[in-house]
Amino acid sequence: MEQKIRVAIVGYGNLGRGVAAALRLAPDMVLAGIFTRRDPAQLKTQSPAYPLAEITQHKQEIDICILCGGSATDVFDQAPQLARDFHCVDSFDTHDRIPAYFERVDASARSSGHVAIICTGWDPGLFSLSRALMQAVLPQGDSVTFWGPGVSQGHSDAVRHVPGVADAVQYTMPRQEAVEAARQGAAGQLSARQKHLRVCYVVPQPDADREEIRRRIITMPHYFDQYDTQVHFITMAEMDEKHRLMPHAGRVIRQGKTSAQQAQTMEFAVQLASNPEFTAAVNVAYARAAARLAKLGQRGAFTVLDVPISYLCLQSAQELYASLL
Amino acid sequence: MEQKIRVAIVGYGNLGRGVAAALRLAPDMVLAGIFTRRDPAQLKTQSPAYPLAEITQHKQEIDICILCGGSATDVFDQAPQLARDFHCVDSFDTHDRIPAYFERVDASARSSGHVAIICTGWDPGLFSLSRALMQAVLPQGDSVTFWGPGVSQGHSDAVRHVPGVADAVQYTMPRQEAVEAARQGAAGQLSARQKHLRVCYVVPQPDADREEIRRRIITMPHYFDQYDTQVHFITMAEMDEKHRLMPHAGRVIRQGKTSAQQAQTMEFAVQLASNPEFTAAVNVAYARAAARLAKLGQRGAFTVLDVPISYLCLQSAQELYASLL
Repeated sequence: MEQKIRVAIVGYGNLGRGVAAALRLAPDMVLAGIFTRRDPAQLKTQSPAYPLAEITQHKQEIDICILCGGSATDVFDQAPQLARDFHCVDSFDTHDRIPAYFERVDASARSSGHVAIICTGWDPGLFSLSRALMQAVLPQGDSVTFWGPGVSQGHSDAVRHVPGVADAVQYTMPRQEAVEAARQGAAGQLSARQKHLRVCYVVPQPDADREEIRRRIITMPHYFDQYDTQVHFITMAEMDEKHRLMPHAGRVIRQGKTSAQQAQTMEFAVQLASNPEFTAAVNVAYARAAARLAKLGQRGAFTVLDVPISYLCLQSAQELYASLL
Repeated sequence: MEQKIRVAIVGYGNLGRGVAAALRLAPDMVLAGIFTRRDPAQLKTQSPAYPLAEITQHKQEIDICILCGGSATDVFDQAPQLARDFHCVDSFDTHDRIPAYFERVDASARSSGHVAIICTGWDPGLFSLSRALMQAVLPQGDSVTFWGPGVSQGHSDAVRHVPGVADAVQYTMPRQEAVEAARQGAAGQLSARQKHLRVCYVVPQPDADREEIRRRIITMPHYFDQYDTQVHFITMAEMDEKHRLMPHAGRVIRQGKTSAQQAQTMEFAVQLASNPEFTAAVNVAYARAAARLAKLGQRGAFTVLDVPISYLCLQSAQELYASLL
């Protein structure tokens, strides 16, 4: 029996709790500890929790760190720092900054002799993997990514910052006619407005000007102005009752031609009751891959594109060939 | 500019023609020649064609062989033989024999210093990749594979061998209610009959006993006896008009739970106007990967589970990170 892979959770919000849940389903892994910037005594968990500042003191007890902080704020700086002492896995998701992020993490991990697998959620992550695979197989074609129906944290936050808003949630909705167009290879020219609809549920503050809130939301540059946006006002009780879950969904579709007449369509889709728990499950599978890469003497930063799928699997190659191929 | 990858097509049926079409869409590859057991002069192609028996004389002109013969008959023996002299890619698809096939090809490729990527079609192939990925991410759940609507060559052949049958085609049809059950995590207990329907179009020989043909088809062990099977009698003219294309489709669905309440569904699907052209397109992407593995000094047999997706891609890792991640 091989030693279990000892995994540290860095940051204990929704994603961190999801990683703890995913580790319970991984017979080859064990939770080494939760590391937090908050007071560890205040965390609602039975697992050992420690101050993040003391993580290097636990170096001998940790094989892999899974970084569960927020991308924009925490992970961009945290990952290069932690990769000096640990093998790391993260779900950094700010698409525009990925090349710069890769370079930073790679330099740190390479010089200290560690493995870091970055951006291992579902988008970026499994959707990136799908886009690359589909483009490689069907070089002549169009890929389209749809998100939703599901909650966008970024857009929900943007609405919550509108003056007069007490609370809000934003659902991104794919338009079914655009999904069908993508399958037929006719979505290449569709605009953002034609692909997705945005639906906001807003709890206004008492005496707030609802029309002004609506106007500010639907004209918000980048977030809403390029979309058709619905704004529905609800009570806090309704928010608590109906909108506290974090479902999400999405699909990558590529239609391409292999010769003049032959249209081929590939599609990868997820339908998620819990977005953070699914992202966490992907992180944990890639933590297994990171342990494998480290054992093979690999060093530096990797993405989902750079790792064979067999490295994510609990089974041996021979078991996989016999049962799944 | 790097040298183009020179690809030989071994066997020139539907799959071989599909590989020739896919190579025309690959700017980094070139067709080195077609190798056939038939008289090369009789092939309908503008490309150079040679007798298969002379392939080793062309060793200096070939980087990778793509094996396009029929699995059951040709490839099982051909691959270990060709791997003595060439890097190879195939779409061997007899699921039960894959572990034995892997061992044979691996031994040959390893001892001669070549790379062979085996079983690179869509099932086995991309569907295997999906099953492994989905099981790694959602270890607690059920995967179901559906095939069709599409033509099954094996079942069509079986019907053609029934006495009194002049020609036949068999369509495998997934049952939509079973697909929905799989998405809801309720398909684990479904029988073969509940998942797929089989529809045969049969051209009877003159004076053939149609009821006897029908009886023989629907009771055929393994092929049809475990399914609901429809048999429709048509004319040869109707066969030629409506049933000479080779469309296919399929999907892998896994529903799993990441914690007690949270059900997550992953799905990978293809909808193919031409089954052989799509299989060929997958083969060609893996030929690029084989060239990459060979360049990295790797040796032996590989499957789709063992190769990073970036190796299939025309673009550099940096281009992929910036554009697709």
